[in-house]
Amino acid sequence: MKTHNALPSKRIPVAVLGATGAVGQRFIQLLDNHPWFEVVALTGSDRAIGQKYYETCHWILPTPMPERVRNLIVTPTMPVEINTPLAFSALPTNVAREAEPLYAQSGTVVCSNASAYRQEPDVPLMLPEVNPDHTKLVSKQQKDRNWPGFIVTNPNCTNTGITIALKPLYDQFGIKRMFIVSMQAVSGAGYPGVPSIDMLGNVVPFIQDEEAKMEWETRKMLGAYQDEQIALAEFNISAHANRVPVPEGHMVCLSVELQREGSIDDIAQAMTSYSAPVISRDLPSSPEMVIQLRSEPDRPQPKMDVMTGNGMTTVVGRLRKDPVFDYKMVILSHNTIRGAAGGSIYNAELLVKQNLLPQ
Amino acid sequence: MKTHNALPSKRIPVAVLGATGAVGQRFIQLLDNHPWFEVVALTGSDRAIGQKYYETCHWILPTPMPERVRNLIVTPTMPVEINTPLAFSALPTNVAREAEPLYAQSGTVVCSNASAYRQEPDVPLMLPEVNPDHTKLVSKQQKDRNWPGFIVTNPNCTNTGITIALKPLYDQFGIKRMFIVSMQAVSGAGYPGVPSIDMLGNVVPFIQDEEAKMEWETRKMLGAYQDEQIALAEFNISAHANRVPVPEGHMVCLSVELQREGSIDDIAQAMTSYSAPVISRDLPSSPEMVIQLRSEPDRPQPKMDVMTGNGMTTVVGRLRKDPVFDYKMVILSHNTIRGAAGGSIYNAELLVKQNLLPQ
Amino acid sequence: MKTHNALPSKRIPVAVLGATGAVGQRFIQLLDNHPWFEVVALTGSDRAIGQKYYETCHWILPTPMPERVRNLIVTPTMPVEINTPLAFSALPTNVAREAEPLYAQSGTVVCSNASAYRQEPDVPLMLPEVNPDHTKLVSKQQKDRNWPGFIVTNPNCTNTGITIALKPLYDQFGIKRMFIVSMQAVSGAGYPGVPSIDMLGNVVPFIQDEEAKMEWETRKMLGAYQDEQIALAEFNISAHANRVPVPEGHMVCLSVELQREGSIDDIAQAMTSYSAPVISRDLPSSPEMVIQLRSEPDRPQPKMDVMTGNGMTTVVGRLRKDPVFDYKMVILSHNTIRGAAGGSIYNAELLVKQNLLPQ
Amino acid sequence: MKTHNALPSKRIPVAVLGATGAVGQRFIQLLDNHPWFEVVALTGSDRAIGQKYYETCHWILPTPMPERVRNLIVTPTMPVEINTPLAFSALPTNVAREAEPLYAQSGTVVCSNASAYRQEPDVPLMLPEVNPDHTKLVSKQQKDRNWPGFIVTNPNCTNTGITIALKPLYDQFGIKRMFIVSMQAVSGAGYPGVPSIDMLGNVVPFIQDEEAKMEWETRKMLGAYQDEQIALAEFNISAHANRVPVPEGHMVCLSVELQREGSIDDIAQAMTSYSAPVISRDLPSSPEMVIQLRSEPDRPQPKMDVMTGNGMTTVVGRLRKDPVFDYKMVILSHNTIRGAAGGSIYNAELLVKQNLLPQ
Repeated sequence: MKTHNALPSKRIPVAVLGATGAVGQRFIQLLDNHPWFEVVALTGSDRAIGQKYYETCHWILPTPMPERVRNLIVTPTMPVEINTPLAFSALPTNVAREAEPLYAQSGTVVCSNASAYRQEPDVPLMLPEVNPDHTKLVSKQQKDRNWPGFIVTNPNCTNTGITIALKPLYDQFGIKRMFIVSMQAVSGAGYPGVPSIDMLGNVVPFIQDEEAKMEWETRKMLGAYQDEQIALAEFNISAHANRVPVPEGHMVCLSVELQREGSIDDIAQAMTSYSAPVISRDLPSSPEMVIQLRSEPDRPQPKMDVMTGNGMTTVVGRLRKDPVFDYKMVILSHNTIRGAAGGSIYNAELLVKQNLLPQ
Repeated sequence: MKTHNALPSKRIPVAVLGATGAVGQRFIQLLDNHPWFEVVALTGSDRAIGQKYYETCHWILPTPMPERVRNLIVTPTMPVEINTPLAFSALPTNVAREAEPLYAQSGTVVCSNASAYRQEPDVPLMLPEVNPDHTKLVSKQQKDRNWPGFIVTNPNCTNTGITIALKPLYDQFGIKRMFIVSMQAVSGAGYPGVPSIDMLGNVVPFIQDEEAKMEWETRKMLGAYQDEQIALAEFNISAHANRVPVPEGHMVCLSVELQREGSIDDIAQAMTSYSAPVISRDLPSSPEMVIQLRSEPDRPQPKMDVMTGNGMTTVVGRLRKDPVFDYKMVILSHNTIRGAAGGSIYNAELLVKQNLLPQ
Repeated sequence: MKTHNALPSKRIPVAVLGATGAVGQRFIQLLDNHPWFEVVALTGSDRAIGQKYYETCHWILPTPMPERVRNLIVTPTMPVEINTPLAFSALPTNVAREAEPLYAQSGTVVCSNASAYRQEPDVPLMLPEVNPDHTKLVSKQQKDRNWPGFIVTNPNCTNTGITIALKPLYDQFGIKRMFIVSMQAVSGAGYPGVPSIDMLGNVVPFIQDEEAKMEWETRKMLGAYQDEQIALAEFNISAHANRVPVPEGHMVCLSVELQREGSIDDIAQAMTSYSAPVISRDLPSSPEMVIQLRSEPDRPQPKMDVMTGNGMTTVVGRLRKDPVFDYKMVILSHNTIRGAAGGSIYNAELLVKQNLLPQ
Repeated sequence: MKTHNALPSKRIPVAVLGATGAVGQRFIQLLDNHPWFEVVALTGSDRAIGQKYYETCHWILPTPMPERVRNLIVTPTMPVEINTPLAFSALPTNVAREAEPLYAQSGTVVCSNASAYRQEPDVPLMLPEVNPDHTKLVSKQQKDRNWPGFIVTNPNCTNTGITIALKPLYDQFGIKRMFIVSMQAVSGAGYPGVPSIDMLGNVVPFIQDEEAKMEWETRKMLGAYQDEQIALAEFNISAHANRVPVPEGHMVCLSVELQREGSIDDIAQAMTSYSAPVISRDLPSSPEMVIQLRSEPDRPQPKMDVMTGNGMTTVVGRLRKDPVFDYKMVILSHNTIRGAAGGSIYNAELLVKQNLLPQ
């Protein structure tokens, strides 16, 4: 992680909602020693309430549980008992739907990894490298809903890599339509997630609700903000979702038809030269490279490339001509870092930089 | 396996070329107790020649090595020392290129799993359920090349399932173009194949030469025989090939655009009602169902469905509308049975039925 | 499966208790087309009651759900609503503790795979190849508990292979003590069992309560029946239990110290020549070989050998001198067939043969 | 890695012998930015000679190939063409046997991971935490063999963890005998190593020559130096070696009988309080903790704990009474870091500290 002009004069206290699950743990891991944020509150389900975090959490990450959260007492997610300016939500969708508005009502800014509000027209669905201007929706959201706080969401883990990889192509060449086939890691299913007896030596060609998200979320993120709303990007996506026996890293095979012609060198150049908008560039979670384009014939691979840029870089490979559309490629993104907790934190950093967080 | 009018009055002696490798072993396993064929000769590489089969073969199948081959002496593949009316070739491509014509020259019919001659205009590329009439090429092949024997090939393991699943759609609705993304089992790479350190918890998005085959072979098999040649089916295919940590069973995500409209029920009906042409129906290796269409949301899966119809049935699932093309689906085929040794044997049975084998 | 003098004049109706879980499904699979038994009733948990089996059961076996159970209505396990002479119990331990006596009370013979009653002095813990005479406990059990039915148990999946492999050594050479280290398949944990995120590329060196069973159950089964009780075999066992990413097949590394000397040939001879007692030999589930001793340096392996004898044979390999005790070896047993459902069924067949089942 | 009084005034140029294999790559990875050593030469097999390292090496580690070696030209291992004071040997045993003496003859100190010379009475078999005084053998080795350089070896990857974990018990309680059963990662087999078809969902209960090493090497390392030789520690070991589908980390189940009694707290205290001898403590590769003793019931696990102390700490867990011997436990060690390349480098650091390296 780079050193930064630590914008906040002191570290902002934050809560993690749904702190004991797989994504909750990633939040806690990534927020440990974060230069701007400091975890002071954790919420959990009934089973966990009132216990110290280390007593109730089955920690599944290979780095040790950070010292500073071990003895935090887990509080209920609802009713809202905590009062931090910022909360990260790792809540399951159904809980998020009910709880997140309560936090926003009570004045907290919620950076959510849940899908519950991604489709709301006044809720930003954000990747700082792609659409930092979509936070303009926030003022409408606060006004219409009469909330002192607000909700900002990050996309589905699979759409994260796809959207980042396509952003430079969308800008320079336009997109007509595309096929995407995902091979997704088991960590994306949370914990306990997929039983090992279903996953060893197997592929499961189905993930509940995933394909609908894959076919929609990218269009919102690549859409244009105007008149207090987002105009969806105009292209169709056909998605196939698969679960594969891989621990971390969602990989996608993509074939894309462009609106305007570009040589393969143009395409490669567009991706490798892509930088995040200036405001998103030097945040604590900004990767050095937004997109890494690999030239080996057999990369990216989850095992080899998932931690590129501390898990925040989108890795693209096998860029080549497509006999049906224009180009095909393979895209890899770390599903629980860039595609979940790390993405939410990056969003929160952007909000700080944009002065959207209450001081 | 069904009981059959055992056409041949006595079992036909056959050789397995390249008998010690992964596909060679499958030939031997599947030919054990075959009603029409009897393995009498095995060839292998220098290392194996002169040894008994059980001494030199590292047997990797979970059923025991058949008794009758254990003590067969492995002979050289070249020069041709054996003289059986039929030989099954499990040779590596480069060896097949040189050796198979020598066998055809010496009067043997070669049913080959190798890719060396699949693209030759006068060599049938065969699936008995799909294109049994392509054996008409044989007489031209014999005449032009002045061979008493001939070569018949079966397709790449990935194209097998795709072609069978698409055959009824091609016949009834026509095909404009398609996307196919494979997730292929490690057994497809032969033995030793992919190192475990590359495969555990990983996906490798590349298989040497595979995509070119995937984009071409289906077009030959769905093509029409006329005037002593095959007119390639006129559609484009875009293929992505991946290796996944699965022992047996190639799975393919497919999106297809048709030439003529059909409801989803029409499509389903076309596939479930598909029967092999009469001549291919009651052969020893004919599966009861050519295509099984599953209705569960999460099937087929390699672990669960790969042995459907003794590994000879093509299993299709997740048939649904496609937002970009017309329909999408998942196709599973057993790569070393239907897609390799079992396919070659089924081809040979067809040749017997067609009286193309020297008596 | 061999043909048998089908002792029962007509098939005996049986129930499967806990029919929707992993072991319950194995019972149903193995009982399909059983020559003596016919599944007529299924019980399940609250969630399943009143539904047709196929509607409520997430079937995880690679062979299709048998036709005859698909439409059976799942009934409650408690209170006892069914009235079959025989029931197979795949209940979780805590449910089994309460439910199994109710069935025995109501006149049903319960062949249980649960551990709840294995340690009761009047309940047989059975392997037909090893201790068929332990069913003599049944009359005492019925008398003392005033039950018209009774309970018979089969051991823990890990102890099954160990006990069978050691039986001939115990008889001929006596056993002083032993070390056993298990590497157990995920199917042993039931369904959903171990999360895939914990199992991919990992070993978990712990299974709840397993080591205590491993150190005790073998002693009861090798113990002698006398005076209406079992005298535990007098030797100590030290056990280490591990879960490994294997779908089916528990493997054990064993080092044993004997009471009397024997050459390695004597030991091998004892194991390979071991036959089940006459009464257990020709039952429908009796394997051809009780023990298969392999001579290759690297066998048994779960993937290759687990289905030996339809999953009912115990496979031993790597028999060699031990520098600390006398001999070391590797033992493989199919944990959900021989070590669970198949073992219970084999027990029930023995009871039929012994005329212990109400007619 | 800690900051150190960088003893050498400038970095010592080193060679890596056998640089393209799995262990060779680990050497190069771990030596990148090493404070004392600098890789200046690489040797390889015929296939690689004359090429730039990045052109010929199939890099299998998830961190990128270090910049400084990419363009080094691979030279032959034999005859000796390079002239560095220090060489790390990742050679296969048979090559090491011939080549390592040639380097010692030419004045190079060889820190070898190969097994070729481990059993030579005048060659130290070293773990700096355990037996740094065994380097006293070096002067005899040089004198008897008339070598200006010399050879120092590190043990087999499996013995590394065992020996470190047992060292404090051996010192305080004495050891009578023990059982060890390993579950070893595939990376221990080098590259390509075990075929994935043999490893997916499987356990292979055999590793060539491994058990003999496991039963002997620990005895040499725990032996006492006296009169220019090592008196082997007097205890017997029984070993079972298994290969499991785990990428990194060898785990061992161990049961040990001690010579003198100790409570479980004594044993735990002995292990947790163990420090390396002073001379081995502050070297660049010294782990903070030599042994970490975990108290959770289900740890260590390779996936979770293998990188403890940057892969240099030995992790012990499940310490408990043993019903046959005295105590049992589970030991985990990183097989390609602590157990291979990292161990050799740590040895070399010790030699620098002991002034045994030519300046």
